[in-house]
Amino acid sequence: MTLSKTERKIIEASIRDIKDFPKPGIVFKDITTLLNDHKAYGVLMNHLYQRYKEYNLDFIAGIDARGFIFGAALAQMLGLGFVPIRKKGKLPYTTISEKYSLEYGVDEVEVHIDAFSAVPNAKVLVIDDLIATGGTANAAATLVNQTGATCVEACFIIGLSFLDGIKKLEEKTTVYSLIEVN
Amino acid sequence: MTLSKTERKIIEASIRDIKDFPKPGIVFKDITTLLNDHKAYGVLMNHLYQRYKEYNLDFIAGIDARGFIFGAALAQMLGLGFVPIRKKGKLPYTTISEKYSLEYGVDEVEVHIDAFSAVPNAKVLVIDDLIATGGTANAAATLVNQTGATCVEACFIIGLSFLDGIKKLEEKTTVYSLIEVN
Repeated sequence: MTLSKTERKIIEASIRDIKDFPKPGIVFKDITTLLNDHKAYGVLMNHLYQRYKEYNLDFIAGIDARGFIFGAALAQMLGLGFVPIRKKGKLPYTTISEKYSLEYGVDEVEVHIDAFSAVPNAKVLVIDDLIATGGTANAAATLVNQTGATCVEACFIIGLSFLDGIKKLEEKTTVYSLIEVN
Repeated sequence: MTLSKTERKIIEASIRDIKDFPKPGIVFKDITTLLNDHKAYGVLMNHLYQRYKEYNLDFIAGIDARGFIFGAALAQMLGLGFVPIRKKGKLPYTTISEKYSLEYGVDEVEVHIDAFSAVPNAKVLVIDDLIATGGTANAAATLVNQTGATCVEACFIIGLSFLDGIKKLEEKTTVYSLIEVN
């Protein structure tokens, strides 16, 4: 199930383009205008609920920090547990971590080692607001699988399909992006 | 409306104490074990929904980053817009910002200047996972009020009542913490 034309129109209209953020030449997709519009936010979350209620998921894992927003709301709607995948140093218990490359340098995300242990062979949806080069999402999917759970799909509100992040991530898991930006 | 004994028991049992995080002598309240337990998470969110459905709120504002989790889920349940209050430099559009003191040094949070503008004189609930000295929460409530909206209550899953954060914040707004730790 993908977005209806009406749903897509409402959601696309609620996303704000910010030129030259965080640096010159980049058009930033601002989803705060989607979130603070209760109609658009409701349409979005209802779509995610309708899509994922048939997936028999066990957990929703959200990527720090905007992925927490969509992930926690979706977990609540589906009656599932929510797991935060965080930047290095933020989680207090024993973690496993995964490094990934940035344009300049390396970053790292972590998950608690027992995050999915309540359900053997747990089926997990990884969610974030946007996929660009896909480094964080790839690391997140890897982490989920390393715990013994399975990342059955990675979901993004916006996919920048002029970059190769989606393609690379598809080698590891199914990818669903609601809005594709060319 | 506050927690029933049964609700309190379920929620308290799901929070994990981590000794000496982030530094020696501190017992960190780990709410990831609450979130990944779908029963406890459901009990918590249902309680927040039952409490706040009578408040005639217009927006839920969540504090970066754990406040996003509870805030976004609650906004979805109540059919409201969600507004992120973020650490300095994360929001792409025009912001107003507020500094606050830390043990050593100063930090700063921001909100988009038009975050609540869709509703004149908007009533806003500010939410975070925990209140300690209350610096961030105080700055968040100040920011909401500076936009022309009103912070009608600040809600925390855990309140550290041996610190004076709640008392100081109560000079500015009503405070509700579900679980108080002495």
